[in-house]
Amino acid sequence: MPRYRLTVEYDGTPYVGWQRQINGPSVQEAIETAGEALSGATAPVYGAGRTDAGVHALAMTAHIDLAKNFSPRTVREALNAHLRPHPIAVLDAAAIDDAFHARFSCQKRYYLYRVLNRRSGAGLYQNRVWLVGPHLEVEAMAEAAQSLIGKHDFTTFRSVQCQADSPIKTLSTLSVTREGEEVHFALDAPSFLHNQVRSLVGTLVQVGLGRWSTDDVKTALEAKDRSQCGPVAPASGLYFVKAEYAGAE
Amino acid sequence: MPRYRLTVEYDGTPYVGWQRQINGPSVQEAIETAGEALSGATAPVYGAGRTDAGVHALAMTAHIDLAKNFSPRTVREALNAHLRPHPIAVLDAAAIDDAFHARFSCQKRYYLYRVLNRRSGAGLYQNRVWLVGPHLEVEAMAEAAQSLIGKHDFTTFRSVQCQADSPIKTLSTLSVTREGEEVHFALDAPSFLHNQVRSLVGTLVQVGLGRWSTDDVKTALEAKDRSQCGPVAPASGLYFVKAEYAGAE
Repeated sequence: MPRYRLTVEYDGTPYVGWQRQINGPSVQEAIETAGEALSGATAPVYGAGRTDAGVHALAMTAHIDLAKNFSPRTVREALNAHLRPHPIAVLDAAAIDDAFHARFSCQKRYYLYRVLNRRSGAGLYQNRVWLVGPHLEVEAMAEAAQSLIGKHDFTTFRSVQCQADSPIKTLSTLSVTREGEEVHFALDAPSFLHNQVRSLVGTLVQVGLGRWSTDDVKTALEAKDRSQCGPVAPASGLYFVKAEYAGAE
Repeated sequence: MPRYRLTVEYDGTPYVGWQRQINGPSVQEAIETAGEALSGATAPVYGAGRTDAGVHALAMTAHIDLAKNFSPRTVREALNAHLRPHPIAVLDAAAIDDAFHARFSCQKRYYLYRVLNRRSGAGLYQNRVWLVGPHLEVEAMAEAAQSLIGKHDFTTFRSVQCQADSPIKTLSTLSVTREGEEVHFALDAPSFLHNQVRSLVGTLVQVGLGRWSTDDVKTALEAKDRSQCGPVAPASGLYFVKAEYAGAE
């Protein structure tokens, strides 16, 4: 079956998440349904990351296997046409060797977390950010983030439902910057645990609010105890930014 | 009754428009209801612009009359609390003399129109832009826009439902620029006719697609004939940016 690599943008608000589930519509199911409409046969889709309900993507990499050969342009245009009115856009499609697997070949994943830091309502940004009213101290959060970067046992910062074999992960980047009314957390790593980004951001926000110190974050990490995590940040502010693969893209 | 000037951001998608109407929820009604909940009495609200269904605002100026005196901070915070879960944010509230009228004192109104110019779906930007697939020639649109700037009879570019006494208006600015995947139309004028921005943008997009020439736009303007207007652009891409008033703000 010809395989195509897809770059997909979506608003995660109306979905139970990336992955097909019996309890509601998913992004994976929407794209598979569009692929079936195009090819007349089942069209399995896999993504680099399995985002949770309400989590968005700026450029998720996925692959789709189609029963017939189509030009990449036809794949992109037909999928977009069949996806309507879903808030899912196939930004790019490319023919790719079937040794490529969007999930298993992925070497690095990038996430962005957007906090809207203002006293008024979320307005135009509802479902696109986490609204935090009190002023956040960005420098304090950036400093506390330093102790989270690198290779650690992230048991404190993973969901109890996480199915990863090991809680040990290497966090390559965790930067915290102010962008106008927003505070942005940029994270990348070869892979993440379930709810890891939202657990880290929720904990750092406690530092930004002055409730936790840098040492409190370090202690929580070292405790390797889920109950030591700060309140998990909501899904609405989280964006899968991009996936990175070996070789020339 | 104490009067407060409000700066309001909203997502226009779920509303019949700014103005209170019997056929559905409006932004004006939502704010008036919040004002009543705060003050215990009717709280009339007026805005600088009466945006249509689906049109958004980045910073609409409005005024509200409350039955009692409150600190501006209380007004802002209480309105935001009572507005939940509306996608309407009161960004600012200030006590103001009752000679101030958000609509009648306004000297200039600024609008932004966002076209998402890409071949894929609207994705994350659904209901926030007008999605136009084929490539738009920005320079051709910017050139054609020149003939629309200044004082003209804009009969061609106003809705047949427009209630303004005169079709003569002075368009101060109409710029067209590319911003990444988007094309932005920035317009300002002392006042606009009903559907004027969407009529102008819809017509210019015909130029960007290569279907109309600059001369065709000039001819349409000079015809003073509504039937000579290009297809009106959808509401989803339109944003009320801000209102300007005389004197120090």
